[in-house]
Order: sequence, then C-alpha cells, then structure tokens
Amino acid sequence: MAVTLAELARRFQGKVRGDSGIAVERVATLDAAGPRDIAYVSDRKYAALLSGTAAGAVILTEADARQYNGTALIVDDPHLCFARVATLLHPPRAFNPGVHVTAVVDPTASVAKTAWIGPHAVIGHRAVIGDDVFIGAGCVVGDGATIGARTRLMARVTIDDHCVIGENCLFHSGAVIGSDGFGYARDGERWHKIPQLGRVVIGHNVEVGANTTIDRGAMGDTVIGDGVKLDNLIQIAHNVRVGENTAIAACAGIAGSTVIGKRCTVGGQAGISGHLIIADDVHITAASLVTNSIAEAGHYSASLKAEPAEKWRRNAARLHHLDEMARRLAKIEQKLK
Amino acid sequence: MAVTLAELARRFQGKVRGDSGIAVERVATLDAAGPRDIAYVSDRKYAALLSGTAAGAVILTEADARQYNGTALIVDDPHLCFARVATLLHPPRAFNPGVHVTAVVDPTASVAKTAWIGPHAVIGHRAVIGDDVFIGAGCVVGDGATIGARTRLMARVTIDDHCVIGENCLFHSGAVIGSDGFGYARDGERWHKIPQLGRVVIGHNVEVGANTTIDRGAMGDTVIGDGVKLDNLIQIAHNVRVGENTAIAACAGIAGSTVIGKRCTVGGQAGISGHLIIADDVHITAASLVTNSIAEAGHYSASLKAEPAEKWRRNAARLHHLDEMARRLAKIEQKLK
Amino acid sequence: MAVTLAELARRFQGKVRGDSGIAVERVATLDAAGPRDIAYVSDRKYAALLSGTAAGAVILTEADARQYNGTALIVDDPHLCFARVATLLHPPRAFNPGVHVTAVVDPTASVAKTAWIGPHAVIGHRAVIGDDVFIGAGCVVGDGATIGARTRLMARVTIDDHCVIGENCLFHSGAVIGSDGFGYARDGERWHKIPQLGRVVIGHNVEVGANTTIDRGAMGDTVIGDGVKLDNLIQIAHNVRVGENTAIAACAGIAGSTVIGKRCTVGGQAGISGHLIIADDVHITAASLVTNSIAEAGHYSASLKAEPAEKWRRNAARLHHLDEMARRLAKIEQKLK
Repeated sequence: MAVTLAELARRFQGKVRGDSGIAVERVATLDAAGPRDIAYVSDRKYAALLSGTAAGAVILTEADARQYNGTALIVDDPHLCFARVATLLHPPRAFNPGVHVTAVVDPTASVAKTAWIGPHAVIGHRAVIGDDVFIGAGCVVGDGATIGARTRLMARVTIDDHCVIGENCLFHSGAVIGSDGFGYARDGERWHKIPQLGRVVIGHNVEVGANTTIDRGAMGDTVIGDGVKLDNLIQIAHNVRVGENTAIAACAGIAGSTVIGKRCTVGGQAGISGHLIIADDVHITAASLVTNSIAEAGHYSASLKAEPAEKWRRNAARLHHLDEMARRLAKIEQKLK
Repeated sequence: MAVTLAELARRFQGKVRGDSGIAVERVATLDAAGPRDIAYVSDRKYAALLSGTAAGAVILTEADARQYNGTALIVDDPHLCFARVATLLHPPRAFNPGVHVTAVVDPTASVAKTAWIGPHAVIGHRAVIGDDVFIGAGCVVGDGATIGARTRLMARVTIDDHCVIGENCLFHSGAVIGSDGFGYARDGERWHKIPQLGRVVIGHNVEVGANTTIDRGAMGDTVIGDGVKLDNLIQIAHNVRVGENTAIAACAGIAGSTVIGKRCTVGGQAGISGHLIIADDVHITAASLVTNSIAEAGHYSASLKAEPAEKWRRNAARLHHLDEMARRLAKIEQKLK
Repeated sequence: MAVTLAELARRFQGKVRGDSGIAVERVATLDAAGPRDIAYVSDRKYAALLSGTAAGAVILTEADARQYNGTALIVDDPHLCFARVATLLHPPRAFNPGVHVTAVVDPTASVAKTAWIGPHAVIGHRAVIGDDVFIGAGCVVGDGATIGARTRLMARVTIDDHCVIGENCLFHSGAVIGSDGFGYARDGERWHKIPQLGRVVIGHNVEVGANTTIDRGAMGDTVIGDGVKLDNLIQIAHNVRVGENTAIAACAGIAGSTVIGKRCTVGGQAGISGHLIIADDVHITAASLVTNSIAEAGHYSASLKAEPAEKWRRNAARLHHLDEMARRLAKIEQKLK
C-alpha cells in the first residue's frame, strides 16, 4: 500500500514540510530507508543520522526538523506517529476464512463464517470463535472457551476450557491460557491438590507473548484488563488481576491473587509476590522483587548492577556482615558522643 | 454430585455442627457461596466475612466456629479438608477411552483400552500408555516412553524418547520432558555437544506446570520423586534429582546434577546452582540464588525487596563501595582503640 | 557401533596405553561402565573412582593416567575428547526421509528429498527445507522460512514466517523462533503496537533449548551467530545480536537491540538490559543483571548468595539504610580528623 504524506498528516494530526504528494510504502530505519520508505527520529541521539538518510520522508518533532532539510512529517510524538504509520502500511496479514481440512472442530462449537481455523487446530465442545478470528496451526481451544472478534492466535497456542478472550487480541506461539493454578494443601508430608475451578478472562486489545502462561483461578477468575501487553515467558498465577493498559516485560512472574493497577509497567525478570495490591501507574524496574503492596504511583526497584566479578565479590561478602557493621558503627557513634 | 455434611465428616474426620443432612454440590468462596456450596476459613483475617456468607456450610476450626452461627464442618485443618472436599466434589473430567481418528499411534505402541489418545497426538515406537491415561490434543510421546496409569497430559505436552512417567501424574500444556541437557565441551573457541544419553524418570502423583522443561540426563537419569509439584516455566537441568513431596514455584531454575531433598519448597524465580546437595525440609525464598550446598533444614534467602527507586538507587550505589566502607570502619575502630 | 581404541586415538589425537585393539561401544560414567564402555576423568576429584571402574577404557590426561593401571586413552583434554567420542558412538538417530501422511506441506514449499517431515507438521508457503533436515511432530514452519541442511527440529517447534535457520542446528521442543518483538508506543494511556517487520536469522551449528523464545526484529533482524548455544526457557528480544560461540544458560533474558560478543557465557537467570554492547569473551554469573555496556573481556557479577533467612533478613534490612550508614561513617571520619 502506498500512502501520501498529505494523507498521513491528515490521519495522524501532523503537518508536512516539503512535497506532501510523496507516497511512502513501508517504514524503515534511517540508514536502511529508500525513497519509498518513511523513517522517524524520536531520540536526539539519532538525529545525527538524519543528514545521511535516503528516506522519502522522516517523522520528526518541530525542533528536530530544524536540523533536517529533507521532506518531513512533523508531529508532537514521532514514536507514536511512527507506530500508527507502520500499522497502516503493514497491517496483519489478510487470510481467507474457512476451516482447514485437518482441523478438528467439535460439532457443537460455533465458528464464525469469517474466521479461519488452521491446520491441526482443535476446537472444543461449545467453544465460540468470533468474527474474523484467526486460529493458527496446532492451536487448542478448549470446551466452552470464547474467542472474541478479530483476535489472532499464532501457532500452537492453548486456550483451555471455559476461558474468555476479548476482541482484537494477539497470542503468540506457545502461550498457555487456563492451565491449573499452583494450589495445594499440605498434610505435613504430602501436597493435596485444590481443584482449580475458575477461568481466565482476558479483555480486548491484549497481546500475550510466546510461551507465556496464565493460570486459571482457583475459585473466581484470573483477569487481564483491556489493553494489557505481556511479553514472552511470563507467568501470571491464579486469581491475579492485571489492570488496563499495564505492560509486563519478558520473564516476569506475578504470584497468586495479586492485583496490579492500570498503566503499570513491570520490567523483565521482575517478580511480584502473592496477595499484594499494586496501585495504578507503578513502575517496577527489571529483576526487582516486590514483596509488599504498593499504594503510591511511582518507580520502585531492588535491582543490582553487574560489575567486575572480583570487585563484586568483595562487596557482596561485606553485605553478608552488614548487620554487624551497622552495630559497630553505632558503637563508635556512642563512644564519640 | 451432592454430598451430605454427614458424609464429608465421616470421610475427612470432622464433625458437623448444625444439620448434617445438608448436601453440598460445589466449593466456593465465602462471599460467592450459596446454599448448595461449601466454603472454608483457615486464616483468622477472613473470619470477618463469615457473618455475611450464604454458604450452605463452612469448614472451620473449633475455635473459628465459635464466631459463626451457621452450619459448620469442624476439622483440625480447614485448608486441607477443603482440598479434599473440593477434589471429591470436582473430580477431573471423565473421558471416554479410545484413540482419536487423527492421532498417530505407532503400531508397536501399547495403549491400554481404558486410555484416551486425543486429536493430533503422536505416540512413538514401543511407547506404553497405561490404564485410564489421558493424552490431550497435540501431545507427543516419544519412542519407548512409558506413561503410568491415570496420568493426564493436557494439550501439547512433549514426553521425549524413553522417559518414564509414574501414575496419577498431571502435566500441563506445553511442558517438555526429556529435552537434551545443556552439555558441551569447549575447544577454546567452539562448543562440542555431549550427547545426552540418560532419561527423565518421574514418580507418582507428580504435577508439572505449563511450559516447564525437564532435561534428560547426560549419562544416568534426571529423577523427580513421588509427590513433587512443579509450577509453570520451571527449568530442571540434566541429572537433577528432586526429592519426594518437594514443591517448586514458577520460573525457578535448578542447574545440572543438583540433588534436592524431600519436602523442600523453592520460591518463584529462585535459582539453585549445579552440583549442589540440598537437605530435606529446606525452604528457599522467592528470587534467591543458592550457590552452596545446604546441609541443614530451614529457611534460606538472598532476596531484596523493592523500595522507591530514588531511595534504592542511593543505597545500591553505596553497596558497590561496601568493601571500602568496611575498611574505613575498621580503620576508625583501630584509631579509637 | 564398536570402535577400537586405536581408531579413537587416531581420530582424536590421543595415545593408547594398554591394548589398543579393545573396542568400545558406548560412553558411561566410571561407576556404571562395563568392559564395552569408555569413561573419562577430567577433574582430579573424580580420580578416586578410577580404581574401582570396570570400564573397558578411560580417557585421561597423562598425569591422571599415572594413578590408573587399566587401559587408557591419553589426551590433553579428556572432557573435549569425551564429547567427540560420545558423538561418534552415539550419533543422532538416523531417520528415513519422506513426508508423514498427516503433515501439511504447502505445494509451493521446497522440501529436499532427503528430509523428513513428521506427523502433524505444517510447512508454509514457499518455505525451504534443506537436505537431511528432520522436522519433528507438530512443528510449524512459516511462510518463506528456510531451514538449512542437517538441521533438526524436535517436536512442536515454531519457526515463524521468513526466518532463516542455518545448517546443523538443533531446536528442542517448544522453541519459538520469530514471534513478534515487544514493541509499542504509548499515547499516555494506551499502547500502540509497532509492527515487527524483521526476521530471525540463525547461523550454523546453533542449539536452541526447549521453550526458548527468539523474537523477530522490529525493523532489521535478530541475529544469532554460528555455534551459539542457548539453553531452555531463554528470552532473546527483538534485534538482539548474539556473537559466535556464545553460550547462554537457562532462564536468561536479553532485552531488545543488545549486541553480545563472541565466546561469551551468560549464567542461568541472568539478564541483560536493552541497547547495550557486550564485548567478546565476557562472562556473566548466574542471576546477575547487566545494565551497562561492557567494553572489556572478563567476569561480571551482581549475584547474592542465599544464607539462613534469619541472618539474611537482618543484613538486607541494613542494606535499605546503607546510604544513611555511609553518611554517618563520613561524619565520624570528619570528626576524627
């Protein structure tokens, strides 16, 4: 698809400096872009690359445009504008509706005529597959599960029995939605399983990364709000609730029954303990462990930074005696008083 | 299924206070429960919810029952009793035995007449599928693998060649049992693979979470004891041995050849280095790294707790100079002597 | 296969002490080995087991051979020699080429006559499957993807559209190559997806562990160099570049656009932040977080070691006041001057 800069400016509230009749077909990086491509600069440190670009146009702020002589689409937020332009120029691949001959669809399932059920997919008893849904190869949609309109499941996704998925969602390969929560009672020696009777209920416009797992609720549901973005290899435990538009980076883990607010970000490999309440607009840095509820918006951290191992070892060794050091310090202060 | 309180009391060594003829059909939370539901209280802080519940009955300790006027099933351990009641009322879904027409079962495989092989499952050469086994959609059971009676594999589980799975186990979607261990020798530049010739041998009553991976032994086997519970996204490396009734939470990783004792618990995102020996009844807190063998039962930790990032950064920065601080402290002590 | 010690010595630059006509068929550990097995000792601490072994031969250094009376294959690096001997004696399982009747191969795909496409595998539009490639059960190879000669995909691997895989690679079950990177722009409230338009390009002799995920580039590619070894449950984000012969242990995560050098090792559960450059020959210890670029070869760490929880809690509590402690220390020094 080719779109003129005039059209892009109209759609995304920008203005064109230069020839607004230029049409672009693809997005590209500054260094790789050619005359039919549109690039962007949102960070000053990349502005140096501007002079050398062969891009047909560049998305820029007013300020950065002053450093550039070429054709520009000027907007307040180039990064956001770029996302929208890229989505317009590179929409998800179109597909023909239908059911692949190797798919196994239960006769009681309801599959929209505009949906696609891919090869070797399995659709369970009374499952509901909405309009324009794409079910990739090897996916398994359990009994009574519901998949909202325009949602896409890439290859080998599991949506377990009775889970509810909203519209416009995207699930990457290997994601597992609705596995049992990790719930047991102990008799002193052995663990006795507590049947996990709830569901996973996922809102609209949610993206779930490859091999991420979301457990069903024990009683009641695990709930993922509208607009939530989950990266790869994340664990969401039973009865967690993730608020709208929260984003969680790869390898993070959220323990059971924790409630996360809206618009939060959780860094990669971060962990949040169970039964906590995290306020809206909380940001957790990578690899930090949150063990207490957080009532106020803001940034929270417990991460350490790698340094040369020899130096680190000396510092870390002292950490294991820090309580003693603190006592010695207090004693000196006492003496000096 | 409806079961009377009298029957529950008989089965689970409790006593009924109130009408023992009341029948319950489901478990529920205190706030969601209706007259055909049974709820429980094991933690004092939930006792406040008791007065408002519409539950047909509540499982309680003798002490907590004093705060409640309704029908009660009184036991020593309400949480454990609840697990048992829930399992009785909500057994795993029954299935009809057979082999789905799309499954690919090697003619040399032995499949019990009471087992179910789901759609698109693949059963290898001389594999053995025991009585009442459930093999879900898209599972792959390798050559010579053995699956014990009543074990259930949810969708898309891999049990690789020659692995041995006990009875009454449950594997969640995406679990991989028997992938190669990570074993190489280096020639200074390149890595040379060491063929991984062992198996994974899993005992009875083991549960394995979604997308968890257990590598086969290099030589000899990786061994998971009876009653072990593994959450989602856990890595168990080659030749690890996990003792009976140990439970490991999500995203934990156990490195090669480590031996973990019985009845241990490993917190989420915790790591245990390779070639260690961990005693029975050891408990590792979430996100802690264990780098030395542990000879004594007890709780072990190295986890830090997230605090406001601004404050944390100041403290963490000092940590990188802690050795120097310790030396300065010692110098002052010397001076004051 | 049985191979004489003379033949092994010739192939792997060793010398035989004892009967070089002895033939061995398998590798084994010292304690499990019998007369048709070959074992090895590379670590002095295992040398004590030598006297009791029934192995037909043992691979040893010259020095260790002095402590052993039996038949020995003497080499400079017994561990490396063992890897080579094991690979010779235990090659990957041979397979008959062909396409399983349940596989779904797009008519435009190019599949070498010597390749195997397993049951329920799906091969996309214009995909290219090279000579002697093994595609396991339930794998999905996307449109336009290329799989180089002799590469093996175990069960249920996803290679997404247009990804390029080199020769002699090995992918374990559940690995996902080419899922979308985690790229969004925010409008203050909601996240807007940035289409992920690049590929994953993987070199030769790469091994990828079970359930590991490698995201496609946003623009441009994610690149994994020749000889890279990735363990299980690793996350490699979009546009990362991993240099030749680097090895990464399980549960590690590499954030977007980071460039890792050659011959590096990254420990289990370690994390590397985005947009960093890590030099060649850098070694990161387990569970460490790298937040800055590393320009010099060497070992780097930020990992803490679990200790008894009671003791740890006291030390960790002090860490949250370390900045204040440092100020008090400075004040005392001032006073004493």
